[in-house]
This record gives sequence, C-alpha cells and structure tokens, in this order.
Amino acid sequence: MMQLVRKIDEIKAAARGAAREGKSVGLVPTMGYLHEGHISLMKKARAENDFLAVSIFVNPTQFGPSEDLDSYPRDLERDLRLCEEAGVNIVFAPESSEMYPEGYSTYVTVEGGVTAGLCGKSRPIHFRGVATVVTKLFNIVRPERAYFGQKDAQQVAVIKKMVRDTNQDVQVIACPIVREADGLALSSRNTYLSPSERQDALTLSSSLFGAVGLISSGEKSAAAVRGYIESRFAGIESASIDYIEIVDPDTMEPLSLISNRALIAIAVKIGKTRLIDNIVAEV
Amino acid sequence: MMQLVRKIDEIKAAARGAAREGKSVGLVPTMGYLHEGHISLMKKARAENDFLAVSIFVNPTQFGPSEDLDSYPRDLERDLRLCEEAGVNIVFAPESSEMYPEGYSTYVTVEGGVTAGLCGKSRPIHFRGVATVVTKLFNIVRPERAYFGQKDAQQVAVIKKMVRDTNQDVQVIACPIVREADGLALSSRNTYLSPSERQDALTLSSSLFGAVGLISSGEKSAAAVRGYIESRFAGIESASIDYIEIVDPDTMEPLSLISNRALIAIAVKIGKTRLIDNIVAEV
Repeated sequence: MMQLVRKIDEIKAAARGAAREGKSVGLVPTMGYLHEGHISLMKKARAENDFLAVSIFVNPTQFGPSEDLDSYPRDLERDLRLCEEAGVNIVFAPESSEMYPEGYSTYVTVEGGVTAGLCGKSRPIHFRGVATVVTKLFNIVRPERAYFGQKDAQQVAVIKKMVRDTNQDVQVIACPIVREADGLALSSRNTYLSPSERQDALTLSSSLFGAVGLISSGEKSAAAVRGYIESRFAGIESASIDYIEIVDPDTMEPLSLISNRALIAIAVKIGKTRLIDNIVAEV
Repeated sequence: MMQLVRKIDEIKAAARGAAREGKSVGLVPTMGYLHEGHISLMKKARAENDFLAVSIFVNPTQFGPSEDLDSYPRDLERDLRLCEEAGVNIVFAPESSEMYPEGYSTYVTVEGGVTAGLCGKSRPIHFRGVATVVTKLFNIVRPERAYFGQKDAQQVAVIKKMVRDTNQDVQVIACPIVREADGLALSSRNTYLSPSERQDALTLSSSLFGAVGLISSGEKSAAAVRGYIESRFAGIESASIDYIEIVDPDTMEPLSLISNRALIAIAVKIGKTRLIDNIVAEV
C-alpha cells in the first residue's frame, strides 16, 4: 500500500525506518505532472532499491520571477495513480511552506563552469534553487541512490558536482531521455504547446539527430554544428533560440573541437514555451 | 586506541561502521591548537555518545584574504595527546586538498539577519566558509550530535539555522565559554598576544561582566550599554573596536531595548590580534 505524506517528519521517519530494517532507499525527485520519462526513472529505481520514495514538489526557488511557477502543470491525483502503478512505497508531496518556512535563508550554490553557461545563463538563480532543494531532499530521505532524467543534462552535472563537493553519501543516476515516437523529448511543459507549436517543436530533436549525423560523417567544428542547428530553426517563426551549446558532458565547459564525447544541448522558445533537449555525440 | 585518519573515505568508513553497530556518533569540529574550551566540548561529547570523532582542520574557506590563515597556530602532536586523554575514538585531520580538491566550487550560504551583522560584517565570506565546511563534515561523519563553543555565538546561531533550513539530522549543542581565572575567554588566537596585550585583552571580559551588572541594576537601553563598553576601551591604546552589538541570541537581530534574553557580543583588535567575546544577559 503506497503512502502519501506531506510533512518532512513523516517522510524522514518512514525512510529512516526502512534504512534501520536494512532496506536500501531510492529517491526519484520530481516536480510532478509525471510522464513516461519519470516512469522510466521510477522503474529503474524500483528494480534497484528495497524502499522507493518519490517526491512531488514544484520547487519555487528554482523559478525566476518571470518564469512559469504559477502556471506549471499539476495533477496530483493522476501522479499518485502512476506512482502506485510503478510500485512506489511513499510519495512526499509537501507544501511550499513546509520546505521553505518563513525566514528560510540557506542556499547551496555550485559555482564555476558547470553552472555558468547553458540554462545557468538565462536562468541565473535556477541551479541555486535546484542544488538547495536537492540537498534538502537528500538530507530528508538519505537515499542510497537518486534518479534524474538526462533531459536536464546540466542539472545532472550540477547535482553530481554538488554531491562530490559536499561529500553527500548518495549515488546520482542519470537515465536516458524518453521521446515520443516522432522524437519530441517528454516534458511536463509540452502540455503548454498548441498543435502547430508541437509540430514546430519537433525541430529540437530532429536538428540534434541531424547534428549527430553531421558529426559521425566527419564534422569536428563545434561552430559548424551550431550553425547547422541554427539553420534548421531559421524558417520556424514560432521559434526563438535561447542557446545552442556543445560542451563537455561532465564539466559543461564549451568545446570548440568535437572529440571523444560531446554534449549538444539546446534551449528554444516555441511560442511562449521554453523547451530543452540534448544528445551526446561520441566520436 | 585512538585512530588518526587523513582521508574522507577513512573517517566515513569508521563513522558508518560505528553507526551500523548501533553506536551513537558525536562530532567535535575544531581548527586544532586545542585549549580547555575544546576539552570541555570533548568531555560533554564523550559522555553523551558511544563513538566520538574530532576533526582538526584549519578551514581556508572561512578566512578572508587578509586574515591569519597562514599564521594560525598549529600543534597536531599536542592536539592528538589531548584528544587521546579526552577519550576520543577517532581524529580526522585532513589536508586542505582532501577537503577542497582542485575545481571545488560548492558553497553553502546562510543569508539574512543571522549573518548580516557582527562578524559577518567585517568578515564577509567567513560564515559561507563555516557553513560549507560544517555541511561537509556533517555529511562525512553523519553525527547524531555536534558540539560547538558558545564563544563563537554567531557561528552557533548560523549553524543551527543552516541545520534547520536544510533538514540535516544532527543536534547542534552549544557549550559555555571557558575562561582563564582572570576572565579572558580561551581562544587559540590568545597565543598571538604579548604580555601587555594580554593584560589589555582582559577588558573584553571585564566590560561584558560590567555590562551585565549595569543591566541587572536596571539599564534597558542597548545604546547606553554599548556606550558603557566603549568607554571601558577608551583608555586602551592597543585596542580598536570592531563591533559592540546587543542582539537576539537566536536570530542575531539587533535589539534597541533589552528585554528577556540579550546577547552582548564584541570584537576588538588588541594590537594585530582580533578577539571576540560575548555574554548573555537575562532580564
């Protein structure tokens, strides 16, 4: 029987109880409105852990003032059904005031290259919010393993760096991007898209696939690959590019020459909806 | 037999091993050059925990560029003897490069009133360094209880706030200031003082005792108490006052009227040596 709890003390007690019984604890942190990407995380976590916790929390500290915190889609009832089907043991769905009570003032910041570019540039406080809430969730649940989607590639790199830097005892596991049949990367924000915008959004994934093709046919220049992706968006009126970056997958440092492994990461606004996607090219 | 370890993995293994055996783990974080103040922390920690870890680490991230990181006194051999006598189970004395390897970039910041005044004003990055290293030590040792000296009253308030905000599972215990027979608060930095400076330094404690006397005889005005302390330093040429503050002991917010409990905290340079002291006045 899956449990739903709202309070930090409740999830702490449940997770500590499981650990005391010798169970391994897994955590899948989410902002809810679950899709197949989340389900894939839960399935892997279910297989690898005795006790599986999922958090559902639209974390206000990772949204900028002009971003979509208020309109971010929510459907707890459906989320709980999906969690139950995935064999989750406990769902932690706190109120904002439970996570950030009045007077809250402690933040975890990962400085340097890993947060400087990509989403860190256009969303300056985003990763501070991510690092802070993930630190809190790790302290609350004390998982042995935590699962994140590779779609947020920079987030994965930031969290891995934070865990290493602060000596947290948790294994951070990144799971592959889950895509629709036509290539669109799953995202809770896809729900914002009109039918024609959804069509336009396909250029994110298809330009990334094209870029990988270009690289495997011998292109080594990051500028050329960027130019190719840019050109793919040239005719799409709804699209405005936030960034197209080719970086080291671990450090997020920009590459000018593509060798070994390169992460191609893009953020594009389609209408009012900011979408991200990425792919790793191996040379 | 007391163990001395230098590596994070070693202290982690020892502390996790103790916890798995059902032992309670206590931690006394220090910068070494131990004095009776530290010993009092270790004695209390020894009595309250099954497994006692002491860290000895002069933490570079809490020193400003013009501060005394390089000259901070060190005597590991003597420290180890004192730890052994106090019944410590394990001493963790890492190199800087073990705690902050190349590329280290994650910091914990406690914002707001608790770090804004007092030492936070003249030492802007100090509490970021403290919060960061204490977070790391807590993640490494996972103590049930951690012990700090009330002499660093603001540090205690900052760490308590950080632990509460980030949901760390540790009880932060503050222990009373230990003083020499003549009133001087024990500090590793007292070793910097010349004999005449040491004499001048007595005005820190004696002015605080005087201030408490003033308050218990009816004085309620923080400004008047500050004025009294200031006047006590007027004739002392070696002294230059950094701050004299009267604040709420938990939030460190300045009080103008003294009621209930008030922390009187001062920082004074005697020659080149910056000393702090404090006392709580209860009305």
